[in-house]
Amino acid sequence: MTIDIPTSRDKVLFTPGPLTTSLSVKQAMLRDAGSWHFEFNAKVEVIREKVLELAGVSREQGYECVLLQGSGTFGVESVFSTSVPHDGKVLVVSNGAYGERMIAMLKCLRIDYEVYRTGEDTPPDPEVVASALAKDAAVTHVAVVHCETTTGILNPIDAIGGVVRDAGRSLIVDAMSSFGAMPIDFENAGIDFLITSANKCIEGVPGFSLVLGKRDALLANEAGTRCLSMDLAAQLRGFEKNGQFRYSPPTHALLAFEQALKELDLEGGVEGRASRYQRNHAVLLDGMRSMGFRSYLSADVQSYLITSFHFPRDPGFTFDAFYRNLSDRGMIIYPGKISQVDLFRIGSIGRIFESDVRALIGAIRGSLEDMKVSSI
Amino acid sequence: MTIDIPTSRDKVLFTPGPLTTSLSVKQAMLRDAGSWHFEFNAKVEVIREKVLELAGVSREQGYECVLLQGSGTFGVESVFSTSVPHDGKVLVVSNGAYGERMIAMLKCLRIDYEVYRTGEDTPPDPEVVASALAKDAAVTHVAVVHCETTTGILNPIDAIGGVVRDAGRSLIVDAMSSFGAMPIDFENAGIDFLITSANKCIEGVPGFSLVLGKRDALLANEAGTRCLSMDLAAQLRGFEKNGQFRYSPPTHALLAFEQALKELDLEGGVEGRASRYQRNHAVLLDGMRSMGFRSYLSADVQSYLITSFHFPRDPGFTFDAFYRNLSDRGMIIYPGKISQVDLFRIGSIGRIFESDVRALIGAIRGSLEDMKVSSI
Repeated sequence: MTIDIPTSRDKVLFTPGPLTTSLSVKQAMLRDAGSWHFEFNAKVEVIREKVLELAGVSREQGYECVLLQGSGTFGVESVFSTSVPHDGKVLVVSNGAYGERMIAMLKCLRIDYEVYRTGEDTPPDPEVVASALAKDAAVTHVAVVHCETTTGILNPIDAIGGVVRDAGRSLIVDAMSSFGAMPIDFENAGIDFLITSANKCIEGVPGFSLVLGKRDALLANEAGTRCLSMDLAAQLRGFEKNGQFRYSPPTHALLAFEQALKELDLEGGVEGRASRYQRNHAVLLDGMRSMGFRSYLSADVQSYLITSFHFPRDPGFTFDAFYRNLSDRGMIIYPGKISQVDLFRIGSIGRIFESDVRALIGAIRGSLEDMKVSSI
Repeated sequence: MTIDIPTSRDKVLFTPGPLTTSLSVKQAMLRDAGSWHFEFNAKVEVIREKVLELAGVSREQGYECVLLQGSGTFGVESVFSTSVPHDGKVLVVSNGAYGERMIAMLKCLRIDYEVYRTGEDTPPDPEVVASALAKDAAVTHVAVVHCETTTGILNPIDAIGGVVRDAGRSLIVDAMSSFGAMPIDFENAGIDFLITSANKCIEGVPGFSLVLGKRDALLANEAGTRCLSMDLAAQLRGFEKNGQFRYSPPTHALLAFEQALKELDLEGGVEGRASRYQRNHAVLLDGMRSMGFRSYLSADVQSYLITSFHFPRDPGFTFDAFYRNLSDRGMIIYPGKISQVDLFRIGSIGRIFESDVRALIGAIRGSLEDMKVSSI
């Protein structure tokens, strides 16, 4: 049987995900596991427990970790689909594409909602959330993105969580890009549901999402679920019944994730991983600024996970040529995702190191020379 | 960085899936791909085209192949969720757990339905489908499982498709366990939607499902979709717009699938694969019968994909002990899934060969001796 000979080394992914992963994480996928077998079930149970531990919460405190097949988006939608009652209403706090995606989900699911929207460079004001909740008693849930992958902005989930808890509503946090590399205080933020993905800061491969939630919140609308495949309550009941996913799990992605969790431990957990990403981000910002690039966000709201930069002013610059030039140098960056300003994005996350970021800076310098771009 | 030293060889999976895959398919996952990158998009496009070719249909005939994150169940539910209009009604033809699962989906999705149910060993009668359609003009779609994984029974999709087409309704076929190893005549059966999984007879790894459908049927209820993540129409539009999955794809599972398709070609396509599975099945039946085991289904409705066997009559037999004994010998079989009769199941599919089936037969013989089971 043949394997094609690769025509290049893997390109380094300076993206918000899927990310570059370690070879050892990928090698964990060189096995086939029986998805109903007790040995595999035991691994799934270890993963679910370990992720709770990583979150700093426990079953004794009433939290559960439910794994769901599909991408992170499936995880977010599953929370709405499973847990918002039919007469419920969601206040979506949005300042980017992932907030807007929540609105699109709620429309499809025919769930009532309202929106509190700020500019893509502006974090939401908890006071505005408080008064929106005071004004509208119908709102049962508030949904917010922690680190908006659209720009890399950090939203104040602790402060928002405080007002949500004070108003007696439930809080849903999309922590796709932050969980595993930023400390998150569940109790303080009063988080009822947090969603992340296998392929973000835990550095597994893509294939499933993870929902951390309060058990009573997960089961609150059990009879009213809107979708069988994405029914988190049934998924939890399934794990509890026999340790199994209800429907075929991505076995290889789970084996990779088990290894990824071990490697996160070896790096010093959330703190250790955060340090590496912070160094990546610092080297990136320094290098880009030295060429004259301006980052989009002000420093106080900028995460160390994803950074957006303005296009150079030089009319010789086109993103497409820039992207292809960097790709030819073995580096992949991301286009922007907002309409008002021309931006591109660079991720500091995944199995990349300062040396990779330095190589990227060199590649960007070379690309600009190739494109004869001088005015940044 | 460490990799745990395996404490055993991988157990051989004689299950309906996830299945044993080739080493070369797994090795294709030792790379990281950028999910928005043009090189990866080109692979996704090749996969979508190649699967249409495998199905014997083409875009010129109006067919499309849409890939969806998640397990096969997600694919089936996505068809209902996307394409059945709000005033639509589905006739579910059921003789097993996967037919019943369709009913559970329709309940969750609040889609009207009726059921034509036969015994788990009895294929549906196309005449009964015809008269159900004649009686109920509200039915817009008929849904049926091709090979019911519950027992391994083959349902007559050609004949059912004929009456569905004559009645001017749409046909949805769950071909999870058959596609890739059984010839399916789309035009003759009048199939509007067919769902399969990456990890069945194409022998990829689990992580996504594949929906083959008529373009106009896929887009017929575009504004009325019930779920954002599982919106097949939007997924198709996404592929057509920029070659990308709308949300993070399981990149590694897709790289594995690309390799799996090449290996299917090398084996002689559907015909070649069918031959191997037929030989596996024949060796299995012979070996089991030589020990006195009785298969559940009559030969005329028995697929060569999955075979159900009655428990031995000997009171010393317990499935749990049998299962664990075989597991200790490096072989994994499957429990039954029906309530009326005590059965276990053995799959002939995946990267297994006659030699593996012979080894299984030997292992079963040894297990029975260990358990002192003599009366089969």
